[in-house]
Amino acid sequence: MVEGGIGMTDSLALHTDKYQINMMYAHWKRGTADEVAVFEAYFRKLPFGNGYAVFAGLERIVGYIKGLAFAEEDIAYLRTQEEGYEEAFLERLREFRFTGNLYSMLEGTLVFPNQPLIRVEARIFEAQLVETALLNFLNYQTLIATKASRIKRVAPDELLLEFGTRRAQEADAAVWGARATYIAGFHATSNLRAGKLFGIQTSGTHAHSWVQGHDSEEDAFRQYAEALPDHVTLLVDTYDTLKSGVPNAIKTARWLADRGKRLHGIRLDSGDLAYLSKRARAMLDDAGFPEVRIVASNDLDENIISELKAQGARIDVWGVGTQLITAFDQPSLGGVYKLVARQKDGELIPVIKISGNPEKISTPGAKDVYRIVSRRTGKAEADYICLPEEQEAVVTGESIRLPDPLHPHQSKLVTDYEALPLLHPIFKDGDLILELPTLDGIRSYHEEQLSLFWPEVLRKLNPETYRVNVSQDLWELRAALIERYH
Amino acid sequence: MVEGGIGMTDSLALHTDKYQINMMYAHWKRGTADEVAVFEAYFRKLPFGNGYAVFAGLERIVGYIKGLAFAEEDIAYLRTQEEGYEEAFLERLREFRFTGNLYSMLEGTLVFPNQPLIRVEARIFEAQLVETALLNFLNYQTLIATKASRIKRVAPDELLLEFGTRRAQEADAAVWGARATYIAGFHATSNLRAGKLFGIQTSGTHAHSWVQGHDSEEDAFRQYAEALPDHVTLLVDTYDTLKSGVPNAIKTARWLADRGKRLHGIRLDSGDLAYLSKRARAMLDDAGFPEVRIVASNDLDENIISELKAQGARIDVWGVGTQLITAFDQPSLGGVYKLVARQKDGELIPVIKISGNPEKISTPGAKDVYRIVSRRTGKAEADYICLPEEQEAVVTGESIRLPDPLHPHQSKLVTDYEALPLLHPIFKDGDLILELPTLDGIRSYHEEQLSLFWPEVLRKLNPETYRVNVSQDLWELRAALIERYH
Repeated sequence: MVEGGIGMTDSLALHTDKYQINMMYAHWKRGTADEVAVFEAYFRKLPFGNGYAVFAGLERIVGYIKGLAFAEEDIAYLRTQEEGYEEAFLERLREFRFTGNLYSMLEGTLVFPNQPLIRVEARIFEAQLVETALLNFLNYQTLIATKASRIKRVAPDELLLEFGTRRAQEADAAVWGARATYIAGFHATSNLRAGKLFGIQTSGTHAHSWVQGHDSEEDAFRQYAEALPDHVTLLVDTYDTLKSGVPNAIKTARWLADRGKRLHGIRLDSGDLAYLSKRARAMLDDAGFPEVRIVASNDLDENIISELKAQGARIDVWGVGTQLITAFDQPSLGGVYKLVARQKDGELIPVIKISGNPEKISTPGAKDVYRIVSRRTGKAEADYICLPEEQEAVVTGESIRLPDPLHPHQSKLVTDYEALPLLHPIFKDGDLILELPTLDGIRSYHEEQLSLFWPEVLRKLNPETYRVNVSQDLWELRAALIERYH
Repeated sequence: MVEGGIGMTDSLALHTDKYQINMMYAHWKRGTADEVAVFEAYFRKLPFGNGYAVFAGLERIVGYIKGLAFAEEDIAYLRTQEEGYEEAFLERLREFRFTGNLYSMLEGTLVFPNQPLIRVEARIFEAQLVETALLNFLNYQTLIATKASRIKRVAPDELLLEFGTRRAQEADAAVWGARATYIAGFHATSNLRAGKLFGIQTSGTHAHSWVQGHDSEEDAFRQYAEALPDHVTLLVDTYDTLKSGVPNAIKTARWLADRGKRLHGIRLDSGDLAYLSKRARAMLDDAGFPEVRIVASNDLDENIISELKAQGARIDVWGVGTQLITAFDQPSLGGVYKLVARQKDGELIPVIKISGNPEKISTPGAKDVYRIVSRRTGKAEADYICLPEEQEAVVTGESIRLPDPLHPHQSKLVTDYEALPLLHPIFKDGDLILELPTLDGIRSYHEEQLSLFWPEVLRKLNPETYRVNVSQDLWELRAALIERYH
């Protein structure tokens, strides 16, 4: 039996698909394991119909890469496999370390389809192994940060609490998901472990069981207020919100006031939140407690919050669970990791993947990405993807022509701009060379990122498509390689 | 920075919502922490429009409960919280162990809405803490086992491979999800860590990058066959499936045949799988390789598999990823954990939770669940939920009247039956008293479970609703408590 009680303490070296090990084995057998390969991770389509995604997962990936080593039990397990890997191969795994380069977007960056989020340049032996875990982390955390950002945009001025652990897809999702929501502007999580691991503020009130566990709701509220007089938010829907819950909360507020304390809030967790919040607000105000905040929960997402606000709901704090932590309406980002260049006769040559599904054809070559920010408006006009030999022109601000991706004969000329490089060197020859920012640093960086974009790109419904351009040279390289294989 | 590289090695004691700790604190303050409470975990609605769910998560929960203890760093973290918990409370946490009783369904059991899947009887201090993690594990694993079971039912005779790690919601979901699919009849997973942890068979071929990494597809296939001649399944869609991939695979099959080996399979990962598989089958057959299997992948789920089979697709092995491991069409089960009884003046009294949403009203009292299996047909006729004092009548086979849950004035009388108890004692006074079955044992048990049900309950679309009845006494108890609070 797995001792789930103390977390999964095994190594993550085998947190990969078997085919990675089989390909590593085949490379090792034919003597090509040390040839350099370049892979890029990207996604093809934005989730939730959103106009952008929020990159997250890098800290987890850095931890994974740093700690990547096969434990003895991993080797022993591989020895049992029917493939019958040779001992010398297993010996090679025993010495395995990541010794390559890794470039990545920074967490909190606004990212778009078909642009490299991470580029790995390493011996094929290493670059292949890390694919699965890297995608596993990147896909989930970016997805949740993006979902959280959508919610943040409809409730920019309220407090946002992440309440999803019980509905998360197992334990890692709960804590890394909570972290992703914090990057996108949530204020606290209910998960104490996430609080401990990442320093996120935690938040919590009481459950229905607290009320059920007393002879009366009034008694339950009073007892809670006595125990934690400085942190009282009362759940008012165990029996009847307006007839019982709110009146009893008001009694507790008076009791607290007599002791120089105050009731922080009430929480609504069922029923018509628009109606109930307005009625509860009026009752609290009439009783002289306008400062008591109203917290709402119950299967909220950005659409419901937006609707409730449109109906004039009086809600100060949103507790968001299931819909957020699972990205309920689209629970997968679909990021991929594709070979874009490989070593041949000592040189890196670009490669392509053709497909029966045209949108799955890859863009060849190791690429850089620049965010083209107009000096006139201060806004991002496009992202520009180019080959390393083209970067000087961009960095020095030469005017560039950006063809419309859907109508390439139309293009716009951009002149007065700053080109911000989006891919940053993280590992160099296996050494971590970036000092990772703090989580609050990431959160602030994300806010700055948002300010670079026009509101039309950021809106929840039918956002303007942000332009992601490949350079003319890349376009021609891609066309030439497609031609070659057809 | 969290060292994600070696897994999350911290304790799971804080893998809980803050409100649990706050309620524990409030109980401790008022001196009621040792009063016994009974909680039940259940879900309200079947996922995917399915007729049943497949219970999973118990092994994880047992590991969690066994290992449950606050580490020094957990205590230190709680000390930093603004609630200002008293030291004597933290001292109490330092000694925390689970000392209660836990009853549970066995993994692999077919389960239904509004029946207790787990019952916890413990000091409120302990019963409250475990809620969050228990739901986190139960909700996800049961969801994925259920999704896998739907897929298994449309492809009962083919090999089923779980390929979802890169799209799973973080690392725990990948491995525990793989385990859940195995319970429901999947044959293997691509995740080697799941293979190592749980003893599930693993499976893997090669990726597009293997083909892209060679000068020609033919060369790539040949090199792979040389390296792993006994385990060759070739991915044939990197460039053009029918013009290039399958012909090159056939060349490789001939090359292997010349060496007394055989090509195991080809894998289709894009394009029209119905058309391509039929053409590929014909090409392989014509070339004299009728034994080469066709593996299909690419965003498959039970509906697509069913459609492909209806179109006469010739697919022998299904590799299922994203849709399965995230339960894409409904990524949360929504299980809850509700107080059903509490100690008062030394006695356990039943409690209820009323709600503005009528379907959220709980059923009070600590309950048992029996599966009523007709001796005449050998099939399950209903599940019967009753109070402990009613069980003797059921166990001895007295005739029972089962009202129709939607139309209570209609009922059926069941006489010649066997009553199988579904809730089994797992922990008694904190000691694990059940020897957990092996994973293969669970898988077989699940198959037996399926054979107890009429096919109408098991079908994918518009299944017959299986009857879950509460006893007359329970019905009256619930009505009386609702009455009392209205």
